[in-house]
Amino acid sequence: MTPRKKLQGLVAATITPMTPDGQINLSVIHQYVDYLVSEQNVKNVFVNGTTGEGLSLNIQERKQLAEEWMCQGKDKLDHVIVHVGALSLPESQELARHAAAIGASGIAVIAPFFFKPTDKDELIAFLQKVASEAPAVPFYYYHIPPLTGVKIRVEELLDGIKEQIPTFQGVKFSDTDLLDLAQCINKNETEQFAFLYGVDEQLLSALAVGANGAVGSTYNYLGRKTNLMLQAFAKPDLRLARKYQFLTGEFLNFVIKLGFGVAETKAVMTFVSGIPMGPPRLPLVDASEEFIVKAKAKLESIVWPDGD
Amino acid sequence: MTPRKKLQGLVAATITPMTPDGQINLSVIHQYVDYLVSEQNVKNVFVNGTTGEGLSLNIQERKQLAEEWMCQGKDKLDHVIVHVGALSLPESQELARHAAAIGASGIAVIAPFFFKPTDKDELIAFLQKVASEAPAVPFYYYHIPPLTGVKIRVEELLDGIKEQIPTFQGVKFSDTDLLDLAQCINKNETEQFAFLYGVDEQLLSALAVGANGAVGSTYNYLGRKTNLMLQAFAKPDLRLARKYQFLTGEFLNFVIKLGFGVAETKAVMTFVSGIPMGPPRLPLVDASEEFIVKAKAKLESIVWPDGD
Amino acid sequence: MTPRKKLQGLVAATITPMTPDGQINLSVIHQYVDYLVSEQNVKNVFVNGTTGEGLSLNIQERKQLAEEWMCQGKDKLDHVIVHVGALSLPESQELARHAAAIGASGIAVIAPFFFKPTDKDELIAFLQKVASEAPAVPFYYYHIPPLTGVKIRVEELLDGIKEQIPTFQGVKFSDTDLLDLAQCINKNETEQFAFLYGVDEQLLSALAVGANGAVGSTYNYLGRKTNLMLQAFAKPDLRLARKYQFLTGEFLNFVIKLGFGVAETKAVMTFVSGIPMGPPRLPLVDASEEFIVKAKAKLESIVWPDGD
Amino acid sequence: MTPRKKLQGLVAATITPMTPDGQINLSVIHQYVDYLVSEQNVKNVFVNGTTGEGLSLNIQERKQLAEEWMCQGKDKLDHVIVHVGALSLPESQELARHAAAIGASGIAVIAPFFFKPTDKDELIAFLQKVASEAPAVPFYYYHIPPLTGVKIRVEELLDGIKEQIPTFQGVKFSDTDLLDLAQCINKNETEQFAFLYGVDEQLLSALAVGANGAVGSTYNYLGRKTNLMLQAFAKPDLRLARKYQFLTGEFLNFVIKLGFGVAETKAVMTFVSGIPMGPPRLPLVDASEEFIVKAKAKLESIVWPDGD
Repeated sequence: MTPRKKLQGLVAATITPMTPDGQINLSVIHQYVDYLVSEQNVKNVFVNGTTGEGLSLNIQERKQLAEEWMCQGKDKLDHVIVHVGALSLPESQELARHAAAIGASGIAVIAPFFFKPTDKDELIAFLQKVASEAPAVPFYYYHIPPLTGVKIRVEELLDGIKEQIPTFQGVKFSDTDLLDLAQCINKNETEQFAFLYGVDEQLLSALAVGANGAVGSTYNYLGRKTNLMLQAFAKPDLRLARKYQFLTGEFLNFVIKLGFGVAETKAVMTFVSGIPMGPPRLPLVDASEEFIVKAKAKLESIVWPDGD
Repeated sequence: MTPRKKLQGLVAATITPMTPDGQINLSVIHQYVDYLVSEQNVKNVFVNGTTGEGLSLNIQERKQLAEEWMCQGKDKLDHVIVHVGALSLPESQELARHAAAIGASGIAVIAPFFFKPTDKDELIAFLQKVASEAPAVPFYYYHIPPLTGVKIRVEELLDGIKEQIPTFQGVKFSDTDLLDLAQCINKNETEQFAFLYGVDEQLLSALAVGANGAVGSTYNYLGRKTNLMLQAFAKPDLRLARKYQFLTGEFLNFVIKLGFGVAETKAVMTFVSGIPMGPPRLPLVDASEEFIVKAKAKLESIVWPDGD
Repeated sequence: MTPRKKLQGLVAATITPMTPDGQINLSVIHQYVDYLVSEQNVKNVFVNGTTGEGLSLNIQERKQLAEEWMCQGKDKLDHVIVHVGALSLPESQELARHAAAIGASGIAVIAPFFFKPTDKDELIAFLQKVASEAPAVPFYYYHIPPLTGVKIRVEELLDGIKEQIPTFQGVKFSDTDLLDLAQCINKNETEQFAFLYGVDEQLLSALAVGANGAVGSTYNYLGRKTNLMLQAFAKPDLRLARKYQFLTGEFLNFVIKLGFGVAETKAVMTFVSGIPMGPPRLPLVDASEEFIVKAKAKLESIVWPDGD
Repeated sequence: MTPRKKLQGLVAATITPMTPDGQINLSVIHQYVDYLVSEQNVKNVFVNGTTGEGLSLNIQERKQLAEEWMCQGKDKLDHVIVHVGALSLPESQELARHAAAIGASGIAVIAPFFFKPTDKDELIAFLQKVASEAPAVPFYYYHIPPLTGVKIRVEELLDGIKEQIPTFQGVKFSDTDLLDLAQCINKNETEQFAFLYGVDEQLLSALAVGANGAVGSTYNYLGRKTNLMLQAFAKPDLRLARKYQFLTGEFLNFVIKLGFGVAETKAVMTFVSGIPMGPPRLPLVDASEEFIVKAKAKLESIVWPDGD
């Protein structure tokens, strides 16, 4: 791991490779790391998140995966963020301690969503109990109200958060409320917080209000294209940036209409990268053959600005 | 445990007692069992469910609690149903094997609700993988769409379920769709399935369409009164049954308006039974003093038909 | 119209017959009245409600229909309740004055649902402004949160309502929250309010907690069967009542799975009664032929307890 | 009205001024027009929409207001778009004919939302029946799923729309799904459609993906500032554009937390413009005094980049 620098740019929400019989398949992580770095130009990962089916794994599996990413990513990846969120606080704490022990670049925690915190204080209390188990590890809040139903505004959450969570370092912001995101960014300019957007299909809109980067599943296989969008935006060449967003959006729009979840992401990554991601774990079920054929044809039909 | 007979009547969804510092408090289970049997006339329990904060515990805690209920309930309780549902299939399977090993009267599984099954087949596939780990233990599906968002109709789920889950034995039905419940009951008359209603405040309406009994948190402290309602309904003395439902409803209506969840249930049980249930675990937070004072006054103000 | 007596028993939520080109077809109301009275044993109607596509008609059409029902129902029907709810308060008031002028037995108002009242006071204020335009006409609140999104509990709404709406007479309660319904009934025993349940497929459950009757679309064609259920319940012969509920539920469960809305209700009523109800108005579209064939076969396959 | 040019830039969603006793107050429209043009630099209006409480007015009021805007806006405004949507198709058609007769620059229609169209075809069928009543008037679809619950994607709706609605001219897009918006824009580049964004607090994000302008309530009183944002974005000076979005967002974020709807918009416009907008109509109720004091102080506290 290189010395800590602020997390920005693209972060791949990693997929958890599985064997045909549904066990985690650690043997391909080495290849996966190399693929992200060399083919997608992505050097940050978010392990055991939604895309990684983190909540479908047991504690032991989550630890093993995190270790493997740390081990294989050594000297290759810049940041390995380990998602340690769980419905059970002691489980989440155990995972936080483990992430600290293996030297993770950061830990992230999703809001608990069976019993849901009803206000900022309850959410902070939960997050704080996890963060404090890894007192030297940067902490990220994983905000994804469409999945959790926890709609506490991040802008409110961040007000004074350093006093309660000294390791607080940023947010994976997976929501379309860009007023909230913009206010977060604006009100924390003096902090070194990272605001990483998590709705891949509209990343450009988040960049427009100041997002530092993005965490998402599509950066596993569209990382290089999206990096070109980030570069165009930085110039700024808005016309070109918009072109990239339109094209990745065209693919995503197409597959979303077919039904696009983690199982389908695994299938897409398998055919794009050639690395076998295997089936998802129940309650998810395999992407259909029809989906794979159509998604592949769509992706190949796209003509990118860089002449690919 | 007495020999298996069909589960019916009232089942208390047990609270998980905790010490002031938030650890599970096994030491009061003995007293809790005696209280349910002697004071509430309730001889069946549902352990590690929603009321029991099962998903907020870690695996070890869930096992310890299940063991303690089995141990203390021996020769006193009729049925100890252990909820073994979890977001992670291997965790749920581990809990199912454990429940079988300790001789639980049944296991129950909530629908996975982070990744949600989208149709009957996906849900059955998940449930089947858990049930098959405890092939001699009656299996109950825990249907609670308001919390899970999984709205697959139970009537459809049950169509042919015995072929896939031979141990299938019934449903904890925690929803207000009584058309679905009535069709379940009607279409499975030849089976020995138990249909236990889980919306305590309208149990009488479920009895009217043929429910066999109920699983709920209020039977911890209103079990005796609710048993009188069941008896009145069985006669049938609808007028008296309605009176009981009105009165328990009056209490619940009152506390729901104040904000009524598991934390508040713990507080109510503590003041009614005298057994210290302790605080809830984060993300839940303690019931307020104001709630406790008001809830206590309300409960004491109710004049029951039996002259209490 | 016979002298006013308390509204109870079954009320048919009337369908609005239309010509093939989508105009209201007043010419069949005469036949419709006779059919309800003689074939379905239903002598109360609720005109221009949801089933009647009231909000899809313009003001003039709503008035014409109400007049025709009053005219044709004279000496035949007991109660003609005219729904006068509208998003626009002045429109609703105009309809209320008209209903009073033609001698309607009652008026009903749905909660406004574009801008939604956020508490009891706002809702009462709106209802009061309509009710006061018809100061001699019994007023009914039409509670249907699944369609309006207005979830203000009726039990709270009714607390002191007579002071603000002296003509208040009852509720069409179209929700599955039977705690709320039971509390309404219990807390207003000294009033002569009518509590008419509006979720046809679970009417028996509402009767169990004291509902006086029901308003619904299915009583257009299943009124006679449902009346037999009411009679069985009154005895009480719960076993028989449950049998009727199961059988009407079996039909409804079947068509709900096919997709069952007002368009489909029109089609069912047409084939059951022989009275041409015509197409629905946009945005609704005709029931499919496939639906009609299947629904007809299902309805004919049911074997009723009375030997039909 | 000046000759038709493509609608772009800012469009004020007009407020409907009312007298203290709740009647529409036509007498201030003259002053309102002048204020928009001279103080806010806004020359397009959207009349009888959500902000204008269009659905709370009766037909006659809607016509009168539209006429007054046409009359007072003559030679001053560029575009007067009249919203003619209604739950009742014949009412909507009547309003469309009226708008055509008075020479409106365009008509707009919200998706019907009591009975909701369930697919593109049903929605198009409804819209087509309205549009065809004004065959020479540009037609705009008013997409606002958070209020209507109609989530049919606009990108799908627009596929081939010109064949069914030859007057189709654009969309008021009031949703946060910017993938949908971006695809709409991208796939219709050869058409002269206007894509006007309707979530004021995140307009910059919509501009980033190519929106032509915006329709919203805040342009009544923040039009001039927002026009400066549009200019900065056009340069492009993203840093400055972002500054403006942050500042308008800071105000909106503040008032949203206080509770911000049409009633509050009326109050804000009254204190900013000095034109008495009067109370809202039931079911809306007056903004509180506390709201007004706080909102005024907040707005005045903002330091704008142009030195105001």
